[in-house]
Amino acid sequence: MKEKPLSSLCTPALVVDVDKVKRNALRMIERCQNLGVQLRPHMKTHKTLECADIMTGGSRRCIVVSTLAEACFYADHGFDDILYAYSLPLDKVERCADLSERLDLFQILLDHPQALDELKKRPLRDGRLWHVWLKLDCGNGRAGVLHSQPEAISLAQAIVGTKGVELTGVYAHCGNSYNCRGVEQIQAVAQETTDLTLQFMEKLKASGITCKSSIGSTPSCSHPVKDMGKLSEVHPGNYGFYDVQQSVIGSCTLEEVAVKVLTRVIGHCPHRNQLLIDCGWCGLSLDGAGKLPTGYAVIEGHTDLKLLSMTQEHGRVEPISGPLDYSKFPLGSLLTLIPYHSCATAVMHPVYHVHSEGRLLGKWIPTRGW
Amino acid sequence: MKEKPLSSLCTPALVVDVDKVKRNALRMIERCQNLGVQLRPHMKTHKTLECADIMTGGSRRCIVVSTLAEACFYADHGFDDILYAYSLPLDKVERCADLSERLDLFQILLDHPQALDELKKRPLRDGRLWHVWLKLDCGNGRAGVLHSQPEAISLAQAIVGTKGVELTGVYAHCGNSYNCRGVEQIQAVAQETTDLTLQFMEKLKASGITCKSSIGSTPSCSHPVKDMGKLSEVHPGNYGFYDVQQSVIGSCTLEEVAVKVLTRVIGHCPHRNQLLIDCGWCGLSLDGAGKLPTGYAVIEGHTDLKLLSMTQEHGRVEPISGPLDYSKFPLGSLLTLIPYHSCATAVMHPVYHVHSEGRLLGKWIPTRGW
Repeated sequence: MKEKPLSSLCTPALVVDVDKVKRNALRMIERCQNLGVQLRPHMKTHKTLECADIMTGGSRRCIVVSTLAEACFYADHGFDDILYAYSLPLDKVERCADLSERLDLFQILLDHPQALDELKKRPLRDGRLWHVWLKLDCGNGRAGVLHSQPEAISLAQAIVGTKGVELTGVYAHCGNSYNCRGVEQIQAVAQETTDLTLQFMEKLKASGITCKSSIGSTPSCSHPVKDMGKLSEVHPGNYGFYDVQQSVIGSCTLEEVAVKVLTRVIGHCPHRNQLLIDCGWCGLSLDGAGKLPTGYAVIEGHTDLKLLSMTQEHGRVEPISGPLDYSKFPLGSLLTLIPYHSCATAVMHPVYHVHSEGRLLGKWIPTRGW
Repeated sequence: MKEKPLSSLCTPALVVDVDKVKRNALRMIERCQNLGVQLRPHMKTHKTLECADIMTGGSRRCIVVSTLAEACFYADHGFDDILYAYSLPLDKVERCADLSERLDLFQILLDHPQALDELKKRPLRDGRLWHVWLKLDCGNGRAGVLHSQPEAISLAQAIVGTKGVELTGVYAHCGNSYNCRGVEQIQAVAQETTDLTLQFMEKLKASGITCKSSIGSTPSCSHPVKDMGKLSEVHPGNYGFYDVQQSVIGSCTLEEVAVKVLTRVIGHCPHRNQLLIDCGWCGLSLDGAGKLPTGYAVIEGHTDLKLLSMTQEHGRVEPISGPLDYSKFPLGSLLTLIPYHSCATAVMHPVYHVHSEGRLLGKWIPTRGW
């Protein structure tokens, strides 16, 4: 069967350039090999089997997920060595126990003694161990025990001292790299997170504890510092797709972004100097508001246009300056939106349309929910 | 089987109070009966069979949808008299033709002569007619021909003059009612949209054309003006669920909001005076940014708290002023988010958990896509 062109799709449609995904994934694999650090790719951006296969080099091993729904989805499809990198929610202990008893290696994460207490109450069958990462906050300001607090060391000691529980590693997310602009700033955050994590590992060692260490974010892993080779693992995720945000940070070029939203012109509004397109926030998300001169996205090949506003199924497009030349945008003509944040855009789509050089190859179906 | 309580749900979870949905729906049905106008409820907020049954009073007739995916979903489940109220997208003519040939009454909408040309090229089988509504812009500023432009009348005439096509009605969406605060302002927009639409109907009549008329939005239909009884139909949608935005506009009280997101405390961050919750934008959407003193949502029973920021699976909550009393929010404790915009929040959830007085009755599964 001859593959159909992208223009055969009804819009709005999320389209994935599989060649770019493969290149982005291979580059990350090689980067980690050169550093001498284990890559544990994060699945949260795409949540598909196919992209997971590409990111793991086909091994279906050593991944990280953001929800238990993802963990179950991957476990159900033959993946193993799965890290559920989310401060153990007390309502999901039993589901985590089930995965721990089903898989060769299911790993969880915690940052509070109360979560450890819950593990004590639910010993695993057949002498299995809870594999636990300690979540450390190295300046990101979200989850995790602050690296500088004595509670971090005492929680690590408590994990080690708990029967049926193993301290597998120390995990830090350098999400503060998202505030960076350019390689120099990215590498400063990467260096700082690495240093703080390695210093913490030294403190653990001084109290007789050794375990793995992992940091990650797409910016820091796209431009790693040499010292990251002293860590056990890194766990970036967005890099399979990348997006406009990553290009603004400096993680990638705009040409490396592998995921886009196809949309069509559905209205001409000369009295407002605007076009209407068939992509609203239902097809793009509202992420990126106020961040770009071109509005909620970059419109490929039309840097003079701005995606001004969206409602559920409509987008309003206008020129950044001057009058709109409607003859260039007949009704039904295609426009391509490069999303500001691919994690947020992908989650809006029940199907991803995969292509190579503009010829459709098939569909990827992501998992959803929690 | 004894129904489980809401607290048995893993979070984040979208929960629907079915009693409130029924009350909201019944009130709208009665309001329209009193006005003497046909209610054509919009499905875009919930996209489920069960809520459609409630909103149509069980008739499964006379609905409006925002996507062809919704149209097909409802058609596949025995619904009929479906209006696809979206300026006919040229890539979807064949799918619309299919629905027009399958259903007793499938209706479309257009606002451009080019869309009419596409209908001419695709005559329906068995002598069936394309049932077409003319989309009029009465000040909303999105899709539609401007009511004041001569092109509006000439397009209506062109539809009437086209073989195989019937001008079913004139359709205006008073989305500008979303800028209102209070009943007086809402009714001013309702009156203006009604007046402009009825004036347009008079102009049509003067040129020998009669057809239906319809306006709608949840604010205007929650507080209708008497003259709306002179219209054929109204088409509100959000009122089944309502949300914080509608309470701010004045369409409803906060107590009437039927849809909420359950979330749990997953972290204490005393060094930042914050809580972490397990609902990020993946469970709530980013709609409402900067609109409320309480942040992205209202936290039920805690008007002193603010949902400050969200990432994919985390929310940061802090007090509006003063220090946080962590003893009130132990790890694992439930919080209830009242969403700013229920259309945007519902679309993030693959399952809605339905309850009556806090006892779970079952699940509603929405349709997705385009």
